[in-house]
Amino acid sequence: MKDIIIHEVGMRDGLQAEESVVLTEQKIKWIKKLGETGVDIIQVGSFVNPKRMPQMADTDELFNYFSLKENKLQKVTLSGLVLNEKGLERGMACGVEMFCMGVSASETHSQKNTGMTTAEATTRIIDMAKSALASGKEVQVSVQSAFGCGFEGKISEEKVLSLVSKFLDNGFKNINLADTAGHAIPDQIERLFTAIFKLDPNADCVCHLHNTYGLGLANAYAAYRVGVRTFESSFAGLGGCPFTAIAAGNVSTEDLVHMFQNMNLRNDIKIDKLIGIAKEAAEYFKRELPGVIYKTGKIPEILHN
Amino acid sequence: MKDIIIHEVGMRDGLQAEESVVLTEQKIKWIKKLGETGVDIIQVGSFVNPKRMPQMADTDELFNYFSLKENKLQKVTLSGLVLNEKGLERGMACGVEMFCMGVSASETHSQKNTGMTTAEATTRIIDMAKSALASGKEVQVSVQSAFGCGFEGKISEEKVLSLVSKFLDNGFKNINLADTAGHAIPDQIERLFTAIFKLDPNADCVCHLHNTYGLGLANAYAAYRVGVRTFESSFAGLGGCPFTAIAAGNVSTEDLVHMFQNMNLRNDIKIDKLIGIAKEAAEYFKRELPGVIYKTGKIPEILHN
Repeated sequence: MKDIIIHEVGMRDGLQAEESVVLTEQKIKWIKKLGETGVDIIQVGSFVNPKRMPQMADTDELFNYFSLKENKLQKVTLSGLVLNEKGLERGMACGVEMFCMGVSASETHSQKNTGMTTAEATTRIIDMAKSALASGKEVQVSVQSAFGCGFEGKISEEKVLSLVSKFLDNGFKNINLADTAGHAIPDQIERLFTAIFKLDPNADCVCHLHNTYGLGLANAYAAYRVGVRTFESSFAGLGGCPFTAIAAGNVSTEDLVHMFQNMNLRNDIKIDKLIGIAKEAAEYFKRELPGVIYKTGKIPEILHN
Repeated sequence: MKDIIIHEVGMRDGLQAEESVVLTEQKIKWIKKLGETGVDIIQVGSFVNPKRMPQMADTDELFNYFSLKENKLQKVTLSGLVLNEKGLERGMACGVEMFCMGVSASETHSQKNTGMTTAEATTRIIDMAKSALASGKEVQVSVQSAFGCGFEGKISEEKVLSLVSKFLDNGFKNINLADTAGHAIPDQIERLFTAIFKLDPNADCVCHLHNTYGLGLANAYAAYRVGVRTFESSFAGLGGCPFTAIAAGNVSTEDLVHMFQNMNLRNDIKIDKLIGIAKEAAEYFKRELPGVIYKTGKIPEILHN
């Protein structure tokens, strides 16, 4: 049993936020390198309409590539995000190992993303998740905008918990609360996850954090503190829109692992490789990325002077 | 009884890290504005040799100014950092209300700063603190490099606690652990402060955090979690040396207050004013400063679209 699980989502949540489309060849290189770091799950991409999101147009191709025996990554699960039945079908056909899907706790966000109310979207997602589980796939269900919404502001904790209850009632244990807008506050994180563990002490809770207001690591620590063991993060902190004042994206994988390794957790993860990938990404995108320790280096154990 | 106490140290720890010397007139403006925000303690400067640190040369002048009846700030305590008996004497003469003084848990840091071993420095500081207390002044004693040292790396927790014990034994309750190098990790923060409260449940614990590796707010939350109620921070996150790769300074006052206000603590502090001062500082120094929310804005309560 691992101390914590790192789900690297930069290839999806990071790259979809970039204006430029990263070439498939470059994506393959990064996925391979990430696979060598010891992170546990890599999100390869999402199955969306390629016309609406050209950054994710090669998701099927990437899964097909890594499904080939000679390209298979060792000890890494490859996940894919699906938004609808069509995406699920595509994912089934190209070798996705873990399906991630979710609903937004914000009605405005749900309407904008899916054209459905949260309730309608929940019924649909539960059907999709059942079908993926029945095919022997791993499934993670999430509540997006669980801690606040860029459109609506505050989100009721009761609403988030009622969505989580529906997931649990339908047998889905792998439950992600996503801080889509970066509004989460550490005590809120503790309150919500504690409430989920009260609903089901065996829930396999995940948190997906953004560092928009600088609270990403504080929130990750708070989540760990109350029993969350799976964390979604992006190398170099990719995931912020580079064209807004609010540049910070997902919590950075190397910053997160750095904190946890200093707590003596997951010392097997090769943090220097993670830092190397973050540096490469900064060179590739030709700008400073939000991650911290790829710039500062790790906290030194012993300095020689 | 206030939820938490904010000790604003930007005028000292922030400005001493800047190459340029800020004019006294500008310092007075900032101290007045900070005094209007509702922060509790403002560190005006340190009493060091003005030849060695011209940035702090006007500390006596500033205290004299704010001691005049017509310039007195309402509901704010003015603190000053003293390193030796000469500084204490100067501080006594110009109206310091709270004396801050400390020793480093790192022998290398102690030698470089004071030319003394930690043990020698402790004896000296205890004498100075007694004398300040006897004069009716508030006194805060601190252990610097309490969580790690830029020269030595790891610092023994036993050593930190033995220094704290000496302070407690001598009747000093107001005890600050300073993360001078920014090496602190949230679980270490919890461990050390929990151990202090075990030594004395009535200790008045303070933490002074730097955001060097992005862990400032996570550490502040961890400290709050175990009962620390006083936090030292700098407006705009000043305090980093602008000429190194590691740009982050003290944890930023407005970011810290933003987190705590979102936990429903200290809603009386005027955070918009704090943000305004941080923006002014960025304009003054003509560069982007490390603070986050003066750039992103606060987490919106309700957005209109």
